[in-house]
Amino acid sequence: MKYLEDLIVGTKAQFGRYEVTREEVLDFARKYDPQAFHLDDEAAAKTHFGRLSASGWHTCAMTMAMIVEDQKGDRRAGLGSPGIDELRWLKPVFPGDILRVETEVTDVRPSRSRPELGSVHSLVTVFNQKDQAVMTMKSIVLVATRPTTNPQMEA
Amino acid sequence: MKYLEDLIVGTKAQFGRYEVTREEVLDFARKYDPQAFHLDDEAAAKTHFGRLSASGWHTCAMTMAMIVEDQKGDRRAGLGSPGIDELRWLKPVFPGDILRVETEVTDVRPSRSRPELGSVHSLVTVFNQKDQAVMTMKSIVLVATRPTTNPQMEA
Repeated sequence: MKYLEDLIVGTKAQFGRYEVTREEVLDFARKYDPQAFHLDDEAAAKTHFGRLSASGWHTCAMTMAMIVEDQKGDRRAGLGSPGIDELRWLKPVFPGDILRVETEVTDVRPSRSRPELGSVHSLVTVFNQKDQAVMTMKSIVLVATRPTTNPQMEA
Repeated sequence: MKYLEDLIVGTKAQFGRYEVTREEVLDFARKYDPQAFHLDDEAAAKTHFGRLSASGWHTCAMTMAMIVEDQKGDRRAGLGSPGIDELRWLKPVFPGDILRVETEVTDVRPSRSRPELGSVHSLVTVFNQKDQAVMTMKSIVLVATRPTTNPQMEA
């Protein structure tokens, strides 16, 4: 288990491989983002996207799937996330794209009011198979401090 | 069709009704966010969430569904979104919750380099059936300017 004290500013990681299928793009769009450029080839061709593209929220979801998969082998004492800053959809994501993730820890802040946890800030960048950045976001995750310094956490 | 010139800072809107089902929470979590507190009742009971809760990304997706549904009747000349600022997950969203949305236009900015469009900034707040704010985000959407001032857009 990795605690707040184990996380170091500047640490970089590369992971993930997510094949974006047409079926999944359509399925997500039908449920959550039924705009024409996410649902219909002809309508998409008339827009600035040029062709059918994934919902930006779908890209977020696929990115989360890669992050959770990666952290299976590198468990953090995570306590959820209060949010995200500066989420940017830089390029469209198309069916057939293969996505991957790069992360860099940008800040590790012990909580002033709650000694049992702190926040870890990371820059998350998602690339396609052409090594084009398609999305960036600044994630914030709460992580527990090491239990030995917080006896009440060991119960 | 609503163009950039039709969107006014300070305009507020309330819309949407989304019933969060257990089946949908589990389905989204299995695909995109398979952390124990989104998948398993017993594991969730041991965390700060208290019980099974929806992925924050699922809340974003459900919110987008309400926004797209709302804009069917009030079409904007939308050109997609470059991103989101300050997304905050304030409270867990549980199966059985009923979500709704409030929005306020906070800024309308004509583009300096591209007279055919501008950006509309809005504060989006999602409430549950107890009128608790469960999520906020600052959305940015690109919207076309009125074609009469841009003859090349009428083609």
